[in-house]
Amino acid sequence: MNDNRYPRGSDLMTNILDTLHGRQTLGDQFSAEGEPTIRANNPQTGEVLPGAFYEATEQEAGRALTLAAECADAFRLTPRQTRANLLRLIADRIEALGDALLQRAHEETALPMPRLTGERGRTVAQARRFADLIEEGSWVDARIDTARPDRQPLPKPDVRKMLRPIGPVVVFGASNFPLAISVAGSDTVSALGAGCPVVVKAHPGHPGACELIAGAVREAVAEAGLPAGVFSLVHGASHDVGRWLVEHPACRAVAFTGSLAGGKALADLAAARPEPIPVYAEMGSVNPMFLMPRALAERAEQIAEQYVLSLNMGVGQFCTNPGVVLAVEGPGYDAFKDAVAQRVTGTAPATMLHAGICSAYGRGVERLQSNAQVQPVASSEQAADADKAQAACQFFETDAQSFLNNPALQDEVFGPCGLLVRCKDAGDFERIAAAMAGSLTATVHAQPGEVGTDSTLVATLEPRVGRLLFNGIPTGIEVCASMHHGGPFPATTHAGYTSIGTDSILRFVKPVCYQGWPDELLPEELRNANPAGIWRMVDDQRTQEPVRPNPR
Amino acid sequence: MNDNRYPRGSDLMTNILDTLHGRQTLGDQFSAEGEPTIRANNPQTGEVLPGAFYEATEQEAGRALTLAAECADAFRLTPRQTRANLLRLIADRIEALGDALLQRAHEETALPMPRLTGERGRTVAQARRFADLIEEGSWVDARIDTARPDRQPLPKPDVRKMLRPIGPVVVFGASNFPLAISVAGSDTVSALGAGCPVVVKAHPGHPGACELIAGAVREAVAEAGLPAGVFSLVHGASHDVGRWLVEHPACRAVAFTGSLAGGKALADLAAARPEPIPVYAEMGSVNPMFLMPRALAERAEQIAEQYVLSLNMGVGQFCTNPGVVLAVEGPGYDAFKDAVAQRVTGTAPATMLHAGICSAYGRGVERLQSNAQVQPVASSEQAADADKAQAACQFFETDAQSFLNNPALQDEVFGPCGLLVRCKDAGDFERIAAAMAGSLTATVHAQPGEVGTDSTLVATLEPRVGRLLFNGIPTGIEVCASMHHGGPFPATTHAGYTSIGTDSILRFVKPVCYQGWPDELLPEELRNANPAGIWRMVDDQRTQEPVRPNPR
Repeated sequence: MNDNRYPRGSDLMTNILDTLHGRQTLGDQFSAEGEPTIRANNPQTGEVLPGAFYEATEQEAGRALTLAAECADAFRLTPRQTRANLLRLIADRIEALGDALLQRAHEETALPMPRLTGERGRTVAQARRFADLIEEGSWVDARIDTARPDRQPLPKPDVRKMLRPIGPVVVFGASNFPLAISVAGSDTVSALGAGCPVVVKAHPGHPGACELIAGAVREAVAEAGLPAGVFSLVHGASHDVGRWLVEHPACRAVAFTGSLAGGKALADLAAARPEPIPVYAEMGSVNPMFLMPRALAERAEQIAEQYVLSLNMGVGQFCTNPGVVLAVEGPGYDAFKDAVAQRVTGTAPATMLHAGICSAYGRGVERLQSNAQVQPVASSEQAADADKAQAACQFFETDAQSFLNNPALQDEVFGPCGLLVRCKDAGDFERIAAAMAGSLTATVHAQPGEVGTDSTLVATLEPRVGRLLFNGIPTGIEVCASMHHGGPFPATTHAGYTSIGTDSILRFVKPVCYQGWPDELLPEELRNANPAGIWRMVDDQRTQEPVRPNPR
Repeated sequence: MNDNRYPRGSDLMTNILDTLHGRQTLGDQFSAEGEPTIRANNPQTGEVLPGAFYEATEQEAGRALTLAAECADAFRLTPRQTRANLLRLIADRIEALGDALLQRAHEETALPMPRLTGERGRTVAQARRFADLIEEGSWVDARIDTARPDRQPLPKPDVRKMLRPIGPVVVFGASNFPLAISVAGSDTVSALGAGCPVVVKAHPGHPGACELIAGAVREAVAEAGLPAGVFSLVHGASHDVGRWLVEHPACRAVAFTGSLAGGKALADLAAARPEPIPVYAEMGSVNPMFLMPRALAERAEQIAEQYVLSLNMGVGQFCTNPGVVLAVEGPGYDAFKDAVAQRVTGTAPATMLHAGICSAYGRGVERLQSNAQVQPVASSEQAADADKAQAACQFFETDAQSFLNNPALQDEVFGPCGLLVRCKDAGDFERIAAAMAGSLTATVHAQPGEVGTDSTLVATLEPRVGRLLFNGIPTGIEVCASMHHGGPFPATTHAGYTSIGTDSILRFVKPVCYQGWPDELLPEELRNANPAGIWRMVDDQRTQEPVRPNPR
């Protein structure tokens, strides 16, 4: 599907960027009823970037959802091949934007071009991966229990079920992944793949990149022959726009990636609706890393290198950033601490996503600096340039008891800030693990045999996290069927769902059960003949075979 | 497993009922710190039944959850055979209670002995069905993506995930299924099967049956060699006890079956916790039944017979009771209405579960009687005896426009009360379907060819219900892999989950992902060798084969 029909590259760049119109994309219409008050800044220079974006009005937000609702039935009933085709067209069209998209995203977020090139690769790869998933079709988890009219004491009816789309979804993209978790990111492509129309609230930190991608999606929707209301994008710097979207009666679910405060506010709004709806918010966490004594003794330098690499990935602006590292005093402890300190000292300050995040980072660092139980260990030698929204890497130390006594030390400091917790023994590890709030990940570094199947630490961590890593780093998420990017509150609002990987589609579906339903009226996936050859559970057996039904 | 080790039947009946102690069951201890203020009444006679039950104190509620939390890690890590054995022992022990259990349940709820005999059969059958599910093991949805260290541009890590128990679950049983959806009902056995300790809040309508079953579960837990804290039962007639349980920090999820007001109140409490938790509340609905014109013309009598049977099942006290039936004026309409009226007239009043439900039913009927847009059609000829908490069957009629103008007519009247909505044409069906709140079920009666794949009615119903029935009745739920007993709010608090059928276990688990985790430390279900031979998804392929991993 990735042909070369579309021009790409720098010849188009100026042209595309000149066309930024700043309006809402409401299906196939543009709309600008509000004021063009949203401007993007280059965080590296403070300069205002070209393009003025219109704050959406309540009417525009409502129209986006009304358009979505009006086409929801038609979209739900499209053949899966049509939806797979849509996702592949979206990937193609994003690639066709060429480097203009990366250039604009770079200017808006200060993320380096190589990083954005990689992120674009992930973005289009995940869209195509969902296309494959949808086309193959088994993800709908089809179940069939055939009738047994002669069963005693009561006849058994024919019962079948599968996952079906829930309707219009509102997506709030992340500031830190302007491509992979934004307008056509994981939330949007999983919802569209499921058969749910999507209304995206553009992130005001990168409105230009949002508009460019929205243009790509809009074209893909048209080329796929789908109703235009399947996709809309609205801009908003105020909280009002988000509220209007979440409170709109047509909205059936919300996906959000961002801060705890933001996610919790949306969840509260959704719960207070006359008809509450689920909010799937991924809100980050401190991602503790536990260094077992022998690993520390034997690999202090190596772990320190990995750790600082992970800590500074994306200027520390990853949800899975390892903010807290725990180690037992003893052999290797000082070597680890010194090695981290040395690397932190040598880390050049770097520009964060925007001035607001940089200020919040500064406040987080000050909170640690002003805590008498926390000692500064090292920070970037080179001073951070506030005019460039730069963050200096920071490394602090505290002891286990102080960490346990100060729940605020578990609060995420979003940025390249690490806190080393000095523990006396494995008991401290277990006590701290037991006191930890929900986290996206936890990492254990250990030598062979150092952690057993009876590990209290691992048993304590398991219910508190979404992903357990062994001798690795939590940053960098594989998009695959076995990924789980989730975790108990406050990491997310529902520990049962992931926002990355193919299972992220499960947020946007609900089971529908058909009892005694005529074969010819069933969705294709549930018909006796199983024309698509999907995997199904038939009378408790997994099979790709057709069903030979008992007489009803 | 169903041997005859346990005495059963009437020889034990007096003995068992004499032993009702009324105390809280907190693991293997009994506790009675509060006052013995809860008495069960025989709704048929008003007589106070033997046994006084102690209202739990906040300390007792807290102790139940503390005991649950203390054994949660150990229970989570039990082999699946142990949990399967527990569920089978629970079924055996319930059967061993013999008719004493049925007798007490009958006295407390007025449900007839044959119904309770059947319900016991369902209760033990579902416990054993979950035992089979757990023992087979594939339900954990194991996923494995093997490492590809040589992948470009980045190596692919080894990533695996499966569903794991979330920890202590609080169960609020239903008044209308004192065995199948109560102390050892679907919620409890699915949670225990998943590996979650359970604290049950006894239903004050049938506290004696609750205590008897709690004794059976307690013995099963001991015989299975499990920590006693795996199961507790607390009594409470006030809302305080429920609140203490839901607000306790150790509670990880709540299962509830009951009224909209009750379920919504618990959901609001849970959302307001410092750490919000999910409440899976099944709150009933009106379960609309649509009679297509040809079906009405050709089968009016037969449908009327089915309809009145369903309407009166359990004195109308089923969550899936078909409260609203819609038909198009024309051939068969009057025949249907007359046939229903005749059967309703001949329906003998019957005792409801308790006086409170009977009063609420009376208020619901009055609401319809006092609505000028609603006409009474028929009611039980024989007068209901208020002293026996009897409900008379009621049948009303309104027209489509009045139904659309009065959203209150969509409110469930819990009991044997039907409302016929006279429609002008299929457009009325579609408009009403589009205006319907979420419902557990919707039923369509149609002749062959009368509903096509392009049916707007079916397309409109699908997102609004959990189960679609064709030419059937919604009451009576098959416990199987394809059952979905759920639906959008207000039918439940989360449309993604079912409270009946094997998938009800999904409420009590969350995915846990293991990245780079040593094979010998993984849960058995994720190890390369796949010793249990469960179905897994390995590198996107479904298989029961072991994994031959790439070199890490």
